[in-house]
Amino acid sequence: MKELESKITDVTKRLLDDYEGGRTIDEIKLFDHPDEEILVDIIGNLRKMIFPGYFRNKSFRVYTVRNNISMLLEDVLFKLSKQISIVLRYDPQFENADEDTLVKKAEELTFKFLHTLPKIREYIETDIEAAYEGDPAAYNKTEIIYSYPGLYAILVSRLAHELFLLGVPLIPRIMTEHAHSKTGIDIHPGATMGKYFFIDHGTGIVIGETTEIGEHVKVYQGVTLGALSTRGGQSLRSKKRHPTIEDNVTIYSGASILGGETVVGAGAVIGGNAFITKSVPAGARISVKNLELKCDFKDKPAIDSEEPGQNETWFYTI
Amino acid sequence: MKELESKITDVTKRLLDDYEGGRTIDEIKLFDHPDEEILVDIIGNLRKMIFPGYFRNKSFRVYTVRNNISMLLEDVLFKLSKQISIVLRYDPQFENADEDTLVKKAEELTFKFLHTLPKIREYIETDIEAAYEGDPAAYNKTEIIYSYPGLYAILVSRLAHELFLLGVPLIPRIMTEHAHSKTGIDIHPGATMGKYFFIDHGTGIVIGETTEIGEHVKVYQGVTLGALSTRGGQSLRSKKRHPTIEDNVTIYSGASILGGETVVGAGAVIGGNAFITKSVPAGARISVKNLELKCDFKDKPAIDSEEPGQNETWFYTI
Amino acid sequence: MKELESKITDVTKRLLDDYEGGRTIDEIKLFDHPDEEILVDIIGNLRKMIFPGYFRNKSFRVYTVRNNISMLLEDVLFKLSKQISIVLRYDPQFENADEDTLVKKAEELTFKFLHTLPKIREYIETDIEAAYEGDPAAYNKTEIIYSYPGLYAILVSRLAHELFLLGVPLIPRIMTEHAHSKTGIDIHPGATMGKYFFIDHGTGIVIGETTEIGEHVKVYQGVTLGALSTRGGQSLRSKKRHPTIEDNVTIYSGASILGGETVVGAGAVIGGNAFITKSVPAGARISVKNLELKCDFKDKPAIDSEEPGQNETWFYTI
Repeated sequence: MKELESKITDVTKRLLDDYEGGRTIDEIKLFDHPDEEILVDIIGNLRKMIFPGYFRNKSFRVYTVRNNISMLLEDVLFKLSKQISIVLRYDPQFENADEDTLVKKAEELTFKFLHTLPKIREYIETDIEAAYEGDPAAYNKTEIIYSYPGLYAILVSRLAHELFLLGVPLIPRIMTEHAHSKTGIDIHPGATMGKYFFIDHGTGIVIGETTEIGEHVKVYQGVTLGALSTRGGQSLRSKKRHPTIEDNVTIYSGASILGGETVVGAGAVIGGNAFITKSVPAGARISVKNLELKCDFKDKPAIDSEEPGQNETWFYTI
Repeated sequence: MKELESKITDVTKRLLDDYEGGRTIDEIKLFDHPDEEILVDIIGNLRKMIFPGYFRNKSFRVYTVRNNISMLLEDVLFKLSKQISIVLRYDPQFENADEDTLVKKAEELTFKFLHTLPKIREYIETDIEAAYEGDPAAYNKTEIIYSYPGLYAILVSRLAHELFLLGVPLIPRIMTEHAHSKTGIDIHPGATMGKYFFIDHGTGIVIGETTEIGEHVKVYQGVTLGALSTRGGQSLRSKKRHPTIEDNVTIYSGASILGGETVVGAGAVIGGNAFITKSVPAGARISVKNLELKCDFKDKPAIDSEEPGQNETWFYTI
Repeated sequence: MKELESKITDVTKRLLDDYEGGRTIDEIKLFDHPDEEILVDIIGNLRKMIFPGYFRNKSFRVYTVRNNISMLLEDVLFKLSKQISIVLRYDPQFENADEDTLVKKAEELTFKFLHTLPKIREYIETDIEAAYEGDPAAYNKTEIIYSYPGLYAILVSRLAHELFLLGVPLIPRIMTEHAHSKTGIDIHPGATMGKYFFIDHGTGIVIGETTEIGEHVKVYQGVTLGALSTRGGQSLRSKKRHPTIEDNVTIYSGASILGGETVVGAGAVIGGNAFITKSVPAGARISVKNLELKCDFKDKPAIDSEEPGQNETWFYTI
């Protein structure tokens, strides 16, 4: 037992010594940290406020919507305001502000944010409509609201985008990364998305910070709306690095559209796995041209021995 | 404080007014909603019933398996039956049914579902076998049961598929989307999967609603078994839109196989990133034919200055 | 009610009978199982120890770091040691060991592991630096620590890799699969990663067991560092099946680099969607050469009727 204690003391000491390195990893700030768990809880309550008839609490019946919504709202107001007052410290202009200034500013930003909820609801209604119209696998709109990861990612991004526009540090990205973790869809809170936005399946989608997306756009799994090169690193900060997608564009799975000057014109259709680094005119249908497939039967297993055409090589082009 | 109160009243009022829009998002149904949290809990208990020796509760020892299994079963029966009685309302034929009819129908469906568990166990045993045989990184079968996301996604899909066949609304999709969220593997509950199904890595896989998969099939990350075009939207509902994959087929990472009339014949091997929209004969080995890679050294960094061949352009074809 | 009881008895009996099959799925071992929930809790506490100033508990202030760190450490020591003593049974050489031997061995391994934490902290500091330098979307390093999934996956992999090197069964893989589930990034605990490793976006990345990665390597979403073929199944166990990536290599999204003899030389840049199965010389810039895109306007929607060039076919090569 004595020996165990001394081993614990030893490893603790090594760790405490290691904290003295003066590196980023060793920083211990005097102020509080944003709390991911609380932010996820806030997202949950905002979702209940967005869809009052779908995610209401058990005890929350039709005739009590009025009371319950103000309870939810006060809860979000209190918690989000607190979290914003914490992260404002990461904005250089508030680094040394006194507590009172932070609290006031945070409250002001939270109210501004809450006032955008009707607009977000208006957009989400159109996103549900687009998903229903666009997906034959959707049996009804309720299914979309309860189970579509694309709708969840879009909802969180629309909420985070409003906080991003208000200049709130850290929180917008923590929110979208929570949605990324849950859905595999990585939308930077800086990205702008028009109405009737539909993401199907969604895993592997990346939509970069300065992307602009019009209305009635459809995006499938594995699509990247990204930057051409990030070799410039921090020198590229805030520059337009990601594409512009105009209205009524459809982008099939695995396509990459890269670059801040790349514009995909209205009504264009980008085929699966296309790799686009230049602008595409309106109405164009882009597909990978010369992807030939090779087909041979060298390793043909015995079970197929009567199959005609074996030991031949066979090609086709898509 | 007075001011804060009036601000809260103001934003609450705006939100309550916004709920009067009569849109999908504004609907407040009188009946209950399916509860994702309870459904995830049910999946957890079903997993314990599938693998009684691997996920038993702490207090659940060998000599008490008999008692514990009936406790788990009663818990699932009670909760799942309740959830099914809720979602049956979304089936037009039960929209106006009385509570008693719903409860009876839900109980009947739940028992039918529970009776499929031995069959599901039989299939899962073969899936574990296929993963062990197919993956040199698997140290033993226990590792597969505890950590392979592919096995988890297949398990949840097999469970959800039985509920889908019984015509239960909403719940099958909520279950598979839970697995999608956890694993990045998106299998629609309508898809049919034969024995010995192995999914390796899995992130980014999409398997559409009307896909049919034979026995001994292996699928890697990023594979899409999808529809050719969903432009038809809701008019395509329930039509065969996704491919048929026969026995002993292997599909490497990033391949897309699209279309309801596309059949991949027995024993075929589909190479990485292949994009298939036509049927493939049995025993064929398909690979991308003419993908040439360009290699140059224009930006060759100083550290490699003695490397032969620099400043040359060099090609190779896979 | 009587009928319900007999139905429950019936389905329970069917299930209990089914457990008698003698299959993998039917095994009920007398010893305990690793507990994923506890392991995730341990990862959380290790993260607090790695970043004492970022994820400290609410009550954990600067002047109490010393006390708190030893509390966290004792908690990890106790829980991890217990979990290791459980999984050691899966190592054939400890299969029949007595409890005392297991406890001692587990404690020894846990201390060895805890002594690697300063080294892991040193590496993680460089990973944060690499993410900040490499990503113009990063507003500050704090944002990286709180929200970047790549950093989380790398952290968990570095922790799991140390346990893997110590020969601990099951736990390393359960840890990396937890990170895979949270981030979509699948790094086998056997993979070796040098300093300054940056993963951007990350969803869909697969890094196989025998991969070796140098310093200052950047990897984007959808990249596979994989095996050429796993047809050999279990006969390939422990063989070098995955590539070696030298220092200063950048691998863009969707690229696949396959094979145990494939070496990507220092400073090479692998373009998006490249499919590499042979070694690449140092300093090379590889890109897909002849991917032509086809562009036509056959389905040109009415809204673009004044757009020049319609009804023409148009090509471009990247």
